[in-house]
Parts: sequence; C-alpha cells; structure tokens
Amino acid sequence: MPRFHARVLVSLRPSVLDPAGEATRAASSRLGVEGVSRLRIGKAVELEIEAPDADTARSRVELLSDRLLANPVIENWELELSEIATTNASLPA
Amino acid sequence: MPRFHARVLVSLRPSVLDPAGEATRAASSRLGVEGVSRLRIGKAVELEIEAPDADTARSRVELLSDRLLANPVIENWELELSEIATTNASLPA
Repeated sequence: MPRFHARVLVSLRPSVLDPAGEATRAASSRLGVEGVSRLRIGKAVELEIEAPDADTARSRVELLSDRLLANPVIENWELELSEIATTNASLPA
Repeated sequence: MPRFHARVLVSLRPSVLDPAGEATRAASSRLGVEGVSRLRIGKAVELEIEAPDADTARSRVELLSDRLLANPVIENWELELSEIATTNASLPA
C-alpha cells in the first residue's frame, strides 16, 4: 500500500498570547541579534501513514489534526502531504 | 529596511526517543486511524526579522537556531526564509 509523509504545523491562533515566544524574542536581543519581532512557537508533527490513495491519507491526517494534534479552540494547523517514493532497495538483488 | 519571514523547524535527532510522539501515535489508533508510523513531534518557530539583505537575515537566524531555538545535542533544525513583500497599504491614500 502506498505510504505518505505528512507534516502538520500547529500554531497558536493570532489572538492567543505566547509567553514562551515572547521570552525567546527577548533572549534573541541578549544574544546580540536585533530586529526580531513576532516570534511565535508552534508544533511541527511529522508522521508516515499508509493509505490506498492520497485523498484517503489526507482525510485521515486531517481528522488526526482536528481531534488529536491541535486544540482548535486556540490553535490553527496546516498540512503538507507527499507520497513516499517506493524504491527497489528492499528487493533481493 | 527589508523584513524577512523565517520558519525554523526543530526536530529531535533520529537517535533520540520521543515518548510524546509515541503516545500520540498510539492515540491515533484509538481514534480509529490505522497505518500511522514514525510520528515525531518537533517545534515550528515563526519569526520576522529586519536585516539589510537576505544573507544577513539568514546568518542571524542561523545563529539564533544554533544557540537559542534548538539544542544541537539532541535536535536538528532547518530554516526557510522569505522576504516579506512591502506594500503601500500603510501609506496615506
């Protein structure tokens, strides 16, 4: 069955405060890096999923994102999906 | 001065265990989504930075990534950088 690689980027909604991000932004000045603004820290979930086709894989990962990976009250998410190319590497020579 | 948008994806090195990712993968089965494997949870840091040019912006964000955003002992990071298009939206009509 085809395998797909999914990357789900989970970010806080713009209206939600991000104290960890603000602390990190302040620390960047102390490191000598000026001009940093709007630093926000989210999650990046990488996974592989087996599915008969890309549409099925996408709908399954969308379900996971809504129900498990993100809290839709305070977080948005976006999904990048790509098929993992099958190779002959595992076949006998 | 030009502004740039940076996205730094911080992920655990492959040799480092990810118990939270494993727990999330197990939970996906309980939600009825089968075929999920290799689920790993990392960080996605989004920020804006002012710099005279893209090379300077990149080297500054690389410094932040190495020193502040990621722990190089257990984490890898990758950087995506793009210039923010300036518009006339803030000029008086």
